[in-house]
Amino acid sequence: MVDFQGIINGINATAAKTDNRGLCATYIPELAKVDLAKFGIHLINIQQQSFSSGDSDERFSIQSISKVFTLSMALGLVGEKLWQRVDVEPSGDPFNHLSLLEMENGIPRNPLINPGAIVVADILVSLLENPKEDFLAYVKNLANDDSINYDEEVARSEKMTGFRNYAAANLLKSYKNLVNDVDTVLDFYFHQCSISMSCAQLANAFFMFINHGKCKKNNTFLTTRQVKRINSLMLTCGFYDEAGEFAFEVGLPGKSGVGGGIVALLPNKFCVATWSPGLNAKGNSKLGMLALERLTTQTELSIF
Amino acid sequence: MVDFQGIINGINATAAKTDNRGLCATYIPELAKVDLAKFGIHLINIQQQSFSSGDSDERFSIQSISKVFTLSMALGLVGEKLWQRVDVEPSGDPFNHLSLLEMENGIPRNPLINPGAIVVADILVSLLENPKEDFLAYVKNLANDDSINYDEEVARSEKMTGFRNYAAANLLKSYKNLVNDVDTVLDFYFHQCSISMSCAQLANAFFMFINHGKCKKNNTFLTTRQVKRINSLMLTCGFYDEAGEFAFEVGLPGKSGVGGGIVALLPNKFCVATWSPGLNAKGNSKLGMLALERLTTQTELSIF
Amino acid sequence: MVDFQGIINGINATAAKTDNRGLCATYIPELAKVDLAKFGIHLINIQQQSFSSGDSDERFSIQSISKVFTLSMALGLVGEKLWQRVDVEPSGDPFNHLSLLEMENGIPRNPLINPGAIVVADILVSLLENPKEDFLAYVKNLANDDSINYDEEVARSEKMTGFRNYAAANLLKSYKNLVNDVDTVLDFYFHQCSISMSCAQLANAFFMFINHGKCKKNNTFLTTRQVKRINSLMLTCGFYDEAGEFAFEVGLPGKSGVGGGIVALLPNKFCVATWSPGLNAKGNSKLGMLALERLTTQTELSIF
Amino acid sequence: MVDFQGIINGINATAAKTDNRGLCATYIPELAKVDLAKFGIHLINIQQQSFSSGDSDERFSIQSISKVFTLSMALGLVGEKLWQRVDVEPSGDPFNHLSLLEMENGIPRNPLINPGAIVVADILVSLLENPKEDFLAYVKNLANDDSINYDEEVARSEKMTGFRNYAAANLLKSYKNLVNDVDTVLDFYFHQCSISMSCAQLANAFFMFINHGKCKKNNTFLTTRQVKRINSLMLTCGFYDEAGEFAFEVGLPGKSGVGGGIVALLPNKFCVATWSPGLNAKGNSKLGMLALERLTTQTELSIF
Repeated sequence: MVDFQGIINGINATAAKTDNRGLCATYIPELAKVDLAKFGIHLINIQQQSFSSGDSDERFSIQSISKVFTLSMALGLVGEKLWQRVDVEPSGDPFNHLSLLEMENGIPRNPLINPGAIVVADILVSLLENPKEDFLAYVKNLANDDSINYDEEVARSEKMTGFRNYAAANLLKSYKNLVNDVDTVLDFYFHQCSISMSCAQLANAFFMFINHGKCKKNNTFLTTRQVKRINSLMLTCGFYDEAGEFAFEVGLPGKSGVGGGIVALLPNKFCVATWSPGLNAKGNSKLGMLALERLTTQTELSIF
Repeated sequence: MVDFQGIINGINATAAKTDNRGLCATYIPELAKVDLAKFGIHLINIQQQSFSSGDSDERFSIQSISKVFTLSMALGLVGEKLWQRVDVEPSGDPFNHLSLLEMENGIPRNPLINPGAIVVADILVSLLENPKEDFLAYVKNLANDDSINYDEEVARSEKMTGFRNYAAANLLKSYKNLVNDVDTVLDFYFHQCSISMSCAQLANAFFMFINHGKCKKNNTFLTTRQVKRINSLMLTCGFYDEAGEFAFEVGLPGKSGVGGGIVALLPNKFCVATWSPGLNAKGNSKLGMLALERLTTQTELSIF
Repeated sequence: MVDFQGIINGINATAAKTDNRGLCATYIPELAKVDLAKFGIHLINIQQQSFSSGDSDERFSIQSISKVFTLSMALGLVGEKLWQRVDVEPSGDPFNHLSLLEMENGIPRNPLINPGAIVVADILVSLLENPKEDFLAYVKNLANDDSINYDEEVARSEKMTGFRNYAAANLLKSYKNLVNDVDTVLDFYFHQCSISMSCAQLANAFFMFINHGKCKKNNTFLTTRQVKRINSLMLTCGFYDEAGEFAFEVGLPGKSGVGGGIVALLPNKFCVATWSPGLNAKGNSKLGMLALERLTTQTELSIF
Repeated sequence: MVDFQGIINGINATAAKTDNRGLCATYIPELAKVDLAKFGIHLINIQQQSFSSGDSDERFSIQSISKVFTLSMALGLVGEKLWQRVDVEPSGDPFNHLSLLEMENGIPRNPLINPGAIVVADILVSLLENPKEDFLAYVKNLANDDSINYDEEVARSEKMTGFRNYAAANLLKSYKNLVNDVDTVLDFYFHQCSISMSCAQLANAFFMFINHGKCKKNNTFLTTRQVKRINSLMLTCGFYDEAGEFAFEVGLPGKSGVGGGIVALLPNKFCVATWSPGLNAKGNSKLGMLALERLTTQTELSIF
């Protein structure tokens, strides 16, 4: 039996001593002002035992991690038809997603880059009666926690500075791959990114991805096949232009966000969330990457 | 002495017999419903003699031809500083202006492609007290014709379908190469494109480009050097991805619009406007191109 | 205990009844003339038990599968320094590898696309005394089979038609990311692609990737960490523009070749090679993909 | 009557006093060792009067200027069919011609960029009995000077370092837009670039472009229409990524080479060649650009 608590305590102790923590995202004030000293980690195993250390109950902006939730909800609602509007391949593009969009006639490379997530948001806006309320309820159910909420300040700041997302949405619209109007879809999208959650809440919400689509309360959200699809997408596309490096260093499917959160998981075994607001040059949490590498090295649990 | 009237009559007669006239632009209803049978031509020489034939007094949507007017006004107002925000080189890009924008960090290749014209519009919006009124007054002065106006229906339709322009403007904004807000700049831009003018009015308004910056009433709008700059830009960049072909077939600086208008000119000699709403595969007026080729062949007046 | 033999027999029986087998690669005569009716599969588990069915002992051109062997040999020789000359990220580029090379200053995206493999070949040519002999010996050792050899006919045909590879090598040279001369490196590269092996031989040679770098005879070729690196690269980059799809449908690291071979593996569990010369639209063996999907579905053994 | 000699003397005097002369091309030793202090200019008017100053009779490597000669010869031989294999539009690409080649399926944007010139070379290699001898004879005839010759040292150096040209040629070959083998075509291409000529010889050889296709001895090499085509190509594509700037600053069709030469011309009026080996950041002769700008400013003779 792996000593998860001991390993996690060690990771937290090491993190506490690390000076070089990267830099906070600065494009909106809410992210820029977060305390760089924060570090949290929470792991839940398939037996639903929890292990945590550091600031694991402090909430932060989940940002792009929300793309996994919208993808799950949309895939559950529309099934395989989803792939007619967004592809499943890595983007391999260090900087210019819009160029790729133009080359591929408005079909984003995958649902975990911004243009792809905007298409997924459009699908949810079309299907849900009250998109923002219904999606929030979905996340609350997944995490089994009613206190999760949007951060309206963050959503407003995203809207004020999200010119590249407006560019992407309009380009999608020009290719007729956006059904609803740009402002409505982006209002939803900026809200999904603004959700605040703690490491503990994230780990709980991702439990279904290690448990064949069933959440902690044993309700089924996705089929085994759908979970496999999302896990494989997280592995190949979950870390911007560092997906290959993460697959190697950590060896787990996962997703990061510019708020400094990362969730990673080993199917049938465990799911773990880390948070440290400082980012490395490729936009992923610096201490989070190191923590997960250490975790898989010490537990010898990875997919490779 | 060249027999301009005889040549123009011949061109009109030939046009009238031509069946294959290309296709109207269809992206907005106002352009789609124009009568394909229309053809007009109006030429004014440096002595201010006018020669015309066909529907030369019927107004049509000048569309991208307006980019020459906004460029002239902006260059007159800010001078060479303009080139810090937009380059002067041909785009050489058959389809994806946005990609180029990304590769060149938000500096459009030239002011006659859409992203470049949007930057120029932004400059005017910053400088003018009442941008739309002041710009319209400028065009009226150039053409010495007070009846010129915006077509609000066309402007509204452009706005409804201009997703690529919204994408470009937002991308420019993300690179901090757009000072004003996207909606204000594009409202101005869609209006400039919506101006209705006849061949006669266009030829008159372009007179200053053959006359060292002085309009028909001898008022100075630009320096000789500024006129040279705009004429060279029209030659190298005035015809989308057909600039090279136009430079060869016609051999004059000029600018086309998807409303079917083309203006072309030979410095110190003459300036000519044609109109035929059917476009060729590259988006330039089919009969207009043929008419101008015939004109320069028969008059033996071209820059090459 | 999984009934590998039963499952494999079933896969072979299904394959035998499948009419739609894709198309052979036709760019060289040696590949074009292979019998489309061929199908073979060979699996070896971590206990070194072998299971096979169909044409599993017939040799075919391994083509791009050889890139895993050259990468292994080079990584074993130079270690982490290798990544200074080739990156580890998916290429995400459906067609134009050379463009990407230009955008990234001559550093190929990963060692499993052609430009990356050419850099790896260059490294081996620099380090090995007799590059072709030494590399062949390495593959023989891995597979524990002295009968493996180059197919000189195939190598010669590749050379006659390999213009894109010549273009890539020269472009690498222009960026100073190729030390040896183009002809020498490509002669080596075309030979590595020309190696003929059977499913059984391939499965044996890949045994070290499921066994922490130790081959069937327990000799150590790579460290555990190096094996993890190569396995993660196979998962994210092993299937051209179908890596994401393969990661999902099959859920195993692997590598395909245009000769119709595929090798895939589950660390600590098993390694499997399939062969069917007909390719799908993305250049991967059609029946091979189906066979592997069926294998992981029926055994419920995959990484996700 | 314009005082060409007086103006040219003034230009030479100014050049002599200029310290900031740019940098010699350094990629081959033959170009790197040329004396930066050199400056020459030679002008011939339509009446065949010659005016010169400075090192106007010293020979230098014409490099890319040769593309105009090969284009002329090929166009004269095959006529309009030529445009099936190379386009006539500006490339608008500051750096990566190969990318564009891939996007446009192996049809180079125009014959004055390297890939386009390589296609033209391929055409000549196909048509001429003794390509190198016959082409040299053509240039000698144009210039009416039998002493013009290849510089074998330069040709050999080009071959040793021309990896991007090898890449381009192989890519063209992969798109089946190169008939002959790469080495033969590039041997011809490297030779054409190596020709040594003086300003006087170049101005004489370009005389036909101001004289409707007739050389100084009144022999016809091209039709008026073919001359117009080449002149328009020189204007829109003759100066790498500085075509727009040159069209404005100088306002003449022309062609530059990395050896420091520039030829420019005003149809029916004059043709001028300058030489100064120091290049500006875009690869065009620094003093040559300034000299031509001054010439057109002082003579008030330009096409705009």
